[in-house]
Amino acid sequence: MRTIDLRSDTVTQPTPAMRKAMAEAEVGDDVYGEDPTVNRLEALAAEMLGFEAGLFMPSGTMTNQVALMLHLKRGQEVIAPKGAHIYEYEPGSLAVLSGGTIRLVEAPYGIPDPEAVRAAIHTSVHQAPTGLIALENTHNTAGGTVVPIAVQRAIQQVAEQAGLPTHLDGARFFNAVVALHTTPLELAKGFRTVSICLSKGLGAPVGSILLMPKEYRAEAWRYRKLLGGGMRQAGVLAAAGILALTEGPQHLARDHQMARALAEGLLRLHLEVDLQTVQTNMVYVQVPQAPAFVQRLRGLGVLANAMGPSRVRFVTHRDLQDEDIPLALQRIEQALQVA
Amino acid sequence: MRTIDLRSDTVTQPTPAMRKAMAEAEVGDDVYGEDPTVNRLEALAAEMLGFEAGLFMPSGTMTNQVALMLHLKRGQEVIAPKGAHIYEYEPGSLAVLSGGTIRLVEAPYGIPDPEAVRAAIHTSVHQAPTGLIALENTHNTAGGTVVPIAVQRAIQQVAEQAGLPTHLDGARFFNAVVALHTTPLELAKGFRTVSICLSKGLGAPVGSILLMPKEYRAEAWRYRKLLGGGMRQAGVLAAAGILALTEGPQHLARDHQMARALAEGLLRLHLEVDLQTVQTNMVYVQVPQAPAFVQRLRGLGVLANAMGPSRVRFVTHRDLQDEDIPLALQRIEQALQVA
Amino acid sequence: MRTIDLRSDTVTQPTPAMRKAMAEAEVGDDVYGEDPTVNRLEALAAEMLGFEAGLFMPSGTMTNQVALMLHLKRGQEVIAPKGAHIYEYEPGSLAVLSGGTIRLVEAPYGIPDPEAVRAAIHTSVHQAPTGLIALENTHNTAGGTVVPIAVQRAIQQVAEQAGLPTHLDGARFFNAVVALHTTPLELAKGFRTVSICLSKGLGAPVGSILLMPKEYRAEAWRYRKLLGGGMRQAGVLAAAGILALTEGPQHLARDHQMARALAEGLLRLHLEVDLQTVQTNMVYVQVPQAPAFVQRLRGLGVLANAMGPSRVRFVTHRDLQDEDIPLALQRIEQALQVA
Amino acid sequence: MRTIDLRSDTVTQPTPAMRKAMAEAEVGDDVYGEDPTVNRLEALAAEMLGFEAGLFMPSGTMTNQVALMLHLKRGQEVIAPKGAHIYEYEPGSLAVLSGGTIRLVEAPYGIPDPEAVRAAIHTSVHQAPTGLIALENTHNTAGGTVVPIAVQRAIQQVAEQAGLPTHLDGARFFNAVVALHTTPLELAKGFRTVSICLSKGLGAPVGSILLMPKEYRAEAWRYRKLLGGGMRQAGVLAAAGILALTEGPQHLARDHQMARALAEGLLRLHLEVDLQTVQTNMVYVQVPQAPAFVQRLRGLGVLANAMGPSRVRFVTHRDLQDEDIPLALQRIEQALQVA
Repeated sequence: MRTIDLRSDTVTQPTPAMRKAMAEAEVGDDVYGEDPTVNRLEALAAEMLGFEAGLFMPSGTMTNQVALMLHLKRGQEVIAPKGAHIYEYEPGSLAVLSGGTIRLVEAPYGIPDPEAVRAAIHTSVHQAPTGLIALENTHNTAGGTVVPIAVQRAIQQVAEQAGLPTHLDGARFFNAVVALHTTPLELAKGFRTVSICLSKGLGAPVGSILLMPKEYRAEAWRYRKLLGGGMRQAGVLAAAGILALTEGPQHLARDHQMARALAEGLLRLHLEVDLQTVQTNMVYVQVPQAPAFVQRLRGLGVLANAMGPSRVRFVTHRDLQDEDIPLALQRIEQALQVA
Repeated sequence: MRTIDLRSDTVTQPTPAMRKAMAEAEVGDDVYGEDPTVNRLEALAAEMLGFEAGLFMPSGTMTNQVALMLHLKRGQEVIAPKGAHIYEYEPGSLAVLSGGTIRLVEAPYGIPDPEAVRAAIHTSVHQAPTGLIALENTHNTAGGTVVPIAVQRAIQQVAEQAGLPTHLDGARFFNAVVALHTTPLELAKGFRTVSICLSKGLGAPVGSILLMPKEYRAEAWRYRKLLGGGMRQAGVLAAAGILALTEGPQHLARDHQMARALAEGLLRLHLEVDLQTVQTNMVYVQVPQAPAFVQRLRGLGVLANAMGPSRVRFVTHRDLQDEDIPLALQRIEQALQVA
Repeated sequence: MRTIDLRSDTVTQPTPAMRKAMAEAEVGDDVYGEDPTVNRLEALAAEMLGFEAGLFMPSGTMTNQVALMLHLKRGQEVIAPKGAHIYEYEPGSLAVLSGGTIRLVEAPYGIPDPEAVRAAIHTSVHQAPTGLIALENTHNTAGGTVVPIAVQRAIQQVAEQAGLPTHLDGARFFNAVVALHTTPLELAKGFRTVSICLSKGLGAPVGSILLMPKEYRAEAWRYRKLLGGGMRQAGVLAAAGILALTEGPQHLARDHQMARALAEGLLRLHLEVDLQTVQTNMVYVQVPQAPAFVQRLRGLGVLANAMGPSRVRFVTHRDLQDEDIPLALQRIEQALQVA
Repeated sequence: MRTIDLRSDTVTQPTPAMRKAMAEAEVGDDVYGEDPTVNRLEALAAEMLGFEAGLFMPSGTMTNQVALMLHLKRGQEVIAPKGAHIYEYEPGSLAVLSGGTIRLVEAPYGIPDPEAVRAAIHTSVHQAPTGLIALENTHNTAGGTVVPIAVQRAIQQVAEQAGLPTHLDGARFFNAVVALHTTPLELAKGFRTVSICLSKGLGAPVGSILLMPKEYRAEAWRYRKLLGGGMRQAGVLAAAGILALTEGPQHLARDHQMARALAEGLLRLHLEVDLQTVQTNMVYVQVPQAPAFVQRLRGLGVLANAMGPSRVRFVTHRDLQDEDIPLALQRIEQALQVA
């Protein structure tokens, strides 16, 4: 039985072209700044997103956290949309590494109201000073939803008026680019720093990049080293990353179509899906006893993630075959009957 | 014009008896554990609340934070009621000192639903592990409201079932004792640690105490030292603290009556007060443009705190005279007319 | 039997004048910046040492640590003389609070060679960047020795050339002023920040002050709060602090004479004392099995501290009577015979 | 002109066999624990060194730092030999990540005296409590020197008697195995944790492993994630790592012979080399104005690292050809004449 893995787009395997590129990569010691493939990847990403500098790291958590270390002084607060990855899945990092704390604002469909962001900025000396405003686009826990560029702009203006920097967690930045029919340049515009992942829908095995102004790079490099993120001949990874960046985005529209098809199929099975959230490559379903349901699905050859007690997440990605969605729907129907 | 200071019960001045006690205090070097007055105060507080050990510190923030350091490993999460002081007014401390992060649960009138607390406990390895459940009684930002003992018990049971410790932020512990018509022993029961302040309604100039099991004390002592909280002849402060503990609580019922009278007066002025929140010595009022209103009040000889853009807090305390509440109401009425 | 306490000058008790001042102190809520006595003390200290601003805190550890937090970015290094208090007795604080690390330079008699300080400044990106150069005057573990002003100047120049700030741990600042026959202004000159203690030889029960440029004060205040060092009616302590600052220094010459007399007496008892280190109010003696020796002394009514396995420290202070030194020497002789 | 790179063994490039293995690696999402190649590498390393569990990470700094996080509570001290990598090149990490501080003991040729280690253990409550004893074998800054197994045992006993864990920084663990004519099992014996690097002399492009008892692994995994060290299809790196572990060690004897030959050649050029330190693949030379000398060498096609103002390090590795050492010596001679 073919297993259909819908847990995450992080399960994508390197393509044959990526494997070939890795095997043939020209490499050097990146701790000395001498890996030509890493340098090429960083320059490419910087150019695509309109930044002066990039820094390659082993994970999206690390690129986000180095950004937080760059922006926050100890004891400061970052404003982020409710459900933000940096809070839900990296809060210990924020506290331990930056000595920072979070201030969440409501964000229906992952979209915070700029005025709510403004109101969350602290001015009282009795509270933690605000040090950063962060967004996430696409917003994972809201359903892989996109934040419109106009909202990004409005929030950047709020930040600017308050003298605050902004950071974009772009773990699925290119999914947002595709869904918004925009360009990387447009979507990245106006943020002080942006992190992007090469290892999710884009298909690279490992790696993320932090984009930033060039005067930040020495300190970002220092923090990466401090966290143990300095890698030696990282060009073997960067070679796959270059393919991910150049050839990966074109596959995302298909991922999004599959997610849409899956969502509609789930609705036909009378499962509770908010179609408005299905904007990219994710489908969140409300089911009672999610962990047990996920367990049953696993027995039937469909992998998904329980996100809390009554919520299941399905994620589409380039390693799925065209027939996988209909097949997954059949198995899900079966799982529902068993229950 | 006599200024009526309703900003906080922290503005209370030491009584003549306290000043006399401070002047005559038998003292020693507390860093060597030799200050007899400090030792006496710690033993007294421990006995009153039913704990094995106490440790005197310069502030409630420090007693709370030392408790968090005792309970949390780096990168762990503390569950607390929305609006908790440790989040609103000490979040940088939690992050910097403990490397800890917060998980807030809804808490109408400061009272979290035990089932919501249970649901907030993390079990996924992808999230920050829960390390502690904290309560605050009375709950300051909810209006100085009390958490019923039955709720405390239910949450302690949730914690116990999850193998988690509990901490009570008792900055206004004795206000809760009085409002709940209970005893310090009953209210403190079942918590692993409790912090109490001597410098708010109880009237001491400086000082808080952390109550704990005796096997915690050496580490608590180490953390106090690490934070720079070790004081030498601290007995001069502890002498006032003993009076605060023994004679302070009897004045709190009057503080509560004054708050009630103030709240009712404000309602008569058509100000928006939720009387259900007025359970102890605080009155929160909704007013548009709170900072400007507070500014006007100051000009008329009434001091209050703006808590955000549209909320003003009044706090009653033992340094107020009987005529101060009616007088304050007159001036508030005047301030409203000006506007 | 009268106990002669030579463990530390921190054991000094508040004088009757201090107790009276505490009892009569005009106070306010210092967290609101409204304690007139605290404000007066901070202004007085700032004026005496030639600084723009001062901030009162509960301990010397806290004033030092707030200074380190002000100067150091996370992961930076502070250069300090070997044996420095901030390393020997506050290293966990440096690490936890500032995320900082130490680089010790040799310092015979507490005096680092300015060229050694220069050589210790890191320039390699592979090492922790230097963020601060710290001195200690008098230098406790070197024997209470003084650092000559010319050395301070030379090291300040090294710092200036490297673009680094300097901090002086002046826990016993006035002992150095007296021993160097200089003025507070001269001794404090050229440092970015200086911390002084009121609770050692100067006799106040509790308190230290951090002196700094005025643009540092808001952040220092924030860090004090973060550490839980904000105190309410701290004026009761500050009142004693004012007397310590104004009347304390004149007693220090006597402390120094007593230390000298004690050292000479110990030499007559054939104990190993380096007279060159006896410059202020401390006498360090080399003895085998120091903890046992200290134990024996205690039985004979003399208190001293074992500083490691073969070193005992005696400290003189204003609470000693004239006959205490000869009497202590008799008892020490007795202790030696017993052994 | 062929450049001879003697800066570090980290410059080694993946072999053709490694590149092939990477291209063909069976991979999965290691964040879900499903990368079979990573799992195989971790099991292999654990078996070779006699541990229950291993955890793959992107760098030696991260494996060391996760070990420190496992062993140290905040504010504790780690005892390490002077010049230890965790102090010289990772001190900010120790401070920021663990809130830990260092206590260095003298270590001629990288070998600390067990009695000095014992004496460095803190027992006073006024100092930072000792939390760990760490060794480094081979010891980089002492010259790549080996610590005899008998010394390791003696220090392990000191630790055991004090109830303290031990950690071995084995960045060049297999160089020590080879130089000591021992086995990985013997050399790793008795340590609570050991970190080894695959990317230095062993030739893998990226990766290190932390070996530990199995009950530590969940927390180590959590800390790796907290630092952003979780990688997705890390099997592409692990595939090279398996070859590094199985085929790498056999090349190290040649590296050591080359270092010896280089050292003897440098002595013939009247350069100052302590032959006693040349035990593995490093040669440290004392030269005045090391940075300028290194600069001259670079112009002549020899790369080396200046380690401070008057010390140059040469490191041999498997990417060197047999004629490289004689050729390097010619060029070094030339560089000396120029000067």
